[in-house]
Amino acid sequence: MRASRYLIATQKETPNDAVVISHQLMLRAGMIRRLSSGLYTWLPTGLRVLRKVERIVREEMDRAGALEVLMPVVQPAELWEESGRWQQYGPELLRIEDRHQNAFCLGPTHEEVITDLIRNEINSYKQLPANFYQVQTKFRDEIRPRFGVMRAREFTMKDAYSFHLGADSLQETYDIMHGAYCRIFDRIGLDYRPVLADTGAIGGSSSHEFHVLADSGEDDIAFSSGSRYAANVELAEAVAPAANRPQPTAEMQEVHTPGQKTIEQVSDFLDSDPAHSVKTLIVLGEAAEGEQAPLVALVLRGDHDLNELKAEKLPGIASPLQFAPEERIASELGCGIGSLGPVGLEIETVVDRAAAHLADFTCGANRDDYHLTGVNWERDLPLARVEDLRNVVAGDASPDGKGTLEIKRGIEVGHIFQLGDKYSRAMNATVLDENGKEQVMSMGCYGIGVSRIVAAAIEQNHDDAGIIWPESIAPFQLAIVPINMHKSDLVREKCEHLYEALREHGIDVLFMDEPKARLGAMLADVELLGIPHRIVVGDRGLERGVVEYKGRRDAESQDFAESQLLEVLLEKLGH
Amino acid sequence: MRASRYLIATQKETPNDAVVISHQLMLRAGMIRRLSSGLYTWLPTGLRVLRKVERIVREEMDRAGALEVLMPVVQPAELWEESGRWQQYGPELLRIEDRHQNAFCLGPTHEEVITDLIRNEINSYKQLPANFYQVQTKFRDEIRPRFGVMRAREFTMKDAYSFHLGADSLQETYDIMHGAYCRIFDRIGLDYRPVLADTGAIGGSSSHEFHVLADSGEDDIAFSSGSRYAANVELAEAVAPAANRPQPTAEMQEVHTPGQKTIEQVSDFLDSDPAHSVKTLIVLGEAAEGEQAPLVALVLRGDHDLNELKAEKLPGIASPLQFAPEERIASELGCGIGSLGPVGLEIETVVDRAAAHLADFTCGANRDDYHLTGVNWERDLPLARVEDLRNVVAGDASPDGKGTLEIKRGIEVGHIFQLGDKYSRAMNATVLDENGKEQVMSMGCYGIGVSRIVAAAIEQNHDDAGIIWPESIAPFQLAIVPINMHKSDLVREKCEHLYEALREHGIDVLFMDEPKARLGAMLADVELLGIPHRIVVGDRGLERGVVEYKGRRDAESQDFAESQLLEVLLEKLGH
Repeated sequence: MRASRYLIATQKETPNDAVVISHQLMLRAGMIRRLSSGLYTWLPTGLRVLRKVERIVREEMDRAGALEVLMPVVQPAELWEESGRWQQYGPELLRIEDRHQNAFCLGPTHEEVITDLIRNEINSYKQLPANFYQVQTKFRDEIRPRFGVMRAREFTMKDAYSFHLGADSLQETYDIMHGAYCRIFDRIGLDYRPVLADTGAIGGSSSHEFHVLADSGEDDIAFSSGSRYAANVELAEAVAPAANRPQPTAEMQEVHTPGQKTIEQVSDFLDSDPAHSVKTLIVLGEAAEGEQAPLVALVLRGDHDLNELKAEKLPGIASPLQFAPEERIASELGCGIGSLGPVGLEIETVVDRAAAHLADFTCGANRDDYHLTGVNWERDLPLARVEDLRNVVAGDASPDGKGTLEIKRGIEVGHIFQLGDKYSRAMNATVLDENGKEQVMSMGCYGIGVSRIVAAAIEQNHDDAGIIWPESIAPFQLAIVPINMHKSDLVREKCEHLYEALREHGIDVLFMDEPKARLGAMLADVELLGIPHRIVVGDRGLERGVVEYKGRRDAESQDFAESQLLEVLLEKLGH
Repeated sequence: MRASRYLIATQKETPNDAVVISHQLMLRAGMIRRLSSGLYTWLPTGLRVLRKVERIVREEMDRAGALEVLMPVVQPAELWEESGRWQQYGPELLRIEDRHQNAFCLGPTHEEVITDLIRNEINSYKQLPANFYQVQTKFRDEIRPRFGVMRAREFTMKDAYSFHLGADSLQETYDIMHGAYCRIFDRIGLDYRPVLADTGAIGGSSSHEFHVLADSGEDDIAFSSGSRYAANVELAEAVAPAANRPQPTAEMQEVHTPGQKTIEQVSDFLDSDPAHSVKTLIVLGEAAEGEQAPLVALVLRGDHDLNELKAEKLPGIASPLQFAPEERIASELGCGIGSLGPVGLEIETVVDRAAAHLADFTCGANRDDYHLTGVNWERDLPLARVEDLRNVVAGDASPDGKGTLEIKRGIEVGHIFQLGDKYSRAMNATVLDENGKEQVMSMGCYGIGVSRIVAAAIEQNHDDAGIIWPESIAPFQLAIVPINMHKSDLVREKCEHLYEALREHGIDVLFMDEPKARLGAMLADVELLGIPHRIVVGDRGLERGVVEYKGRRDAESQDFAESQLLEVLLEKLGH
């Protein structure tokens, strides 16, 4: 592409409404422009990257045996009523009416449409398993669209849906798709992790998220230093300490702690380590028919955080998790929430594995302004129920027994689910089995945020000068930057010749051919655009028979003999 | 692609809600499925064709120098208010509200969005001309969606927009795009015509439609037998007869024609030719300020049809054209509409060129139940104003003086416009010219109905057995049909070998590899799918060293030596 026939559209200023670096750089590099809140136009440079991501996704979906289809953006309400989601889905589902007052929505996802299609097209077990994907525009009416295309309202997604008889077939396709996702992110060249994920409201039995690791990520990912284990922090198991609990060495004592309520205050006051204290949180248990929900105490080490998802999954605890009102705690337990402790507490008590491992610990005395020190399980109080209640922290043992956990931020760019029969049962999507009996199909679903990948790649690959594209998705692979081309026929001739030669080899070249463009401005643009390779062609170098080359990540440029330039460049470009 | 891993989804029955052949065949060949009124899912076979059309369109847009962008489907109301179309556009514009009660629409077209983008990105004449295109989902809330994807509500369109300073630059890009459109339809292999079109409500100065000729088309296209002239019938000029008007030979006579009102009735009654009579239509003229619109008489030959578009463009005639109420005609002209005639009519009278060429003609006598025969211009009545008022008919002289006109039905698949400054002026899209002065840009816009092309290609290419794809957009180029493959290792081996060899050459092959599939059913599917080439591989042929080949348009199959098969097929496939 010749810059003179292209829209580079770079900007020097960082737009002040862009918070994250990918959003700033996509605007500055002329990749996108905001049309309205959460709505973006992809300019030529941005679209080039988006299309390269799409192509890799399509190739790997095809290789995985998924068939491409294209379902409408606009979907009729009836199907969503059949699945129950018309009522369940929040205001992110943009509901619309056509001229005949029929109800539709803009599809945030296509489970209903594909299930409707497949129940009509597939009738026999012989046609299973089947797997369909599309690359389509989705719409989610986010309450606060932000971070550019990272959390836009209109975005491009690859979604796939597989259909099966039986869990084994579903697992097999799920594994194939897991492998395809890994290949996609490997090919793009991203540092990512497939992580165990919660199946959440969408239901189903097994799920993995694919996260690109980047400081700006919205999720915490725990992963092992010694294995491939990785999980969303909300799901990662906090295993019990391996060693036995230490023996008691101190006597239990009640100490006066006037006005000290938080773990930090008490620890400071007593000059002790929060890791040697416990905190006691009171939540609601499951209510028996017609009765008030009982109170349940959750006991954690002072330096650990409650994992609400883990707690609410436990038997006897209300889901979603509800903290007990302070008034009820005061009237039933006789003290404020800053003085609670497990000793003498006459309600169901669940103790986290790490807290259960403490000896000589500190806790509230269930009496305002008093705490207990030197407390020991099974001497001063019983230890009835021990569970995994907390978020893992860095340094915890990996649940698979190999290495310890690290925690990093991740950007979710893919999510695969074993849906089971959630949709197929509600919508009566059945096939005849080998015995001629109707069976509800099982389903898997597999999403990739195509436009989000573009932003995530930038979050992971940039410097002060701009974007540093992975070679696989760079808008251009190489830039040719001439010096004073409008004054030098030799420079023009060499550049034109090289441009055509590289194009003939199928290389995406940006030829900065605008007359009178300043060298500094061109080089700044090429760096901002993140083009992996660039050469500078000038009379002075040509006199010496050389051309200057610099890779986007290189600290220094180097000279190559002009006579061997094409071969050198093709080699660097992997040809 | 192996049929065993594909969704062929053919149907034997013609769906009874499908009227036109392309809609029937797209359903029967498993290309599309209806989701809701005017909303279709593209199945794998349909999508393969759609993608091939898209690719050709993109290649030719790139070659024409247009840059690809991608604008949102959802567009904010404010921009449409700026252009004035929020009010002007009818209910085909689907207006929606987001969760914050902000108004948006689903884009039926993107003039506003691109104009907003360009007024921000382009500030100098040096950046012009510029030309941008996208391939995007569009939505038009048609009151009666019909003919499948031919007139769907959600559809895929390629739309391009060019920006200029001055009419010459616009004309230059317009000509380039005209050429690109011709190459697109040539490459696809369609019988089409670029035709002069009305610029209509969208405004602007020049416009061509691209029509695929097919009996089911909704438009009448007039084109010359002796030149490249073609125009929509509503726009084609009806030239004046070349010869002089014949001399009068009869006397004017009033004849009693009781109850005879239409041209047919009067001609039958008088045993005369409708082509020797005139009909007189009364329309409203342009009203002066505060006054009633005057009546104007339009006089046409009895066998010709009024072209309302031509009439309403004439000075002194109300636009849009309005026929005068019968009561007003009766009270002011003294007779019913079946007895009107130009003789003695005391209102402004406009005579069509062909009617002005008549001698000894018949017309109404402006007296109920009476007509005049033997009437002659400039003897019995003045001939003040002659204009082109009628639709052309087959056999008319071509307006360019070369050959005569034929009329065929056409399906509009493309439309290019010189918009001028309609949008750029309303939205203040200006650049600085060479003198540093602000100038409003001129615009062109260029649309192609990508999904409609798929249907139009079928309308033009089918037979009783199914679709006959042009090679360029066939879902598969070749089908391999084995006979009893599950019983013959030799057949399997030959088929597998050929399948892999063809795939290595980049050929799209459909390998009918389903065990136990019946030969007749497979061949019927291959014909219905419209695959241009197919071979049948069976033990009996292999014993003789041959394989059966048949092109989709061939009457008879032929045998080729198995040893030369690959070379023969590659040659037929243009490799």
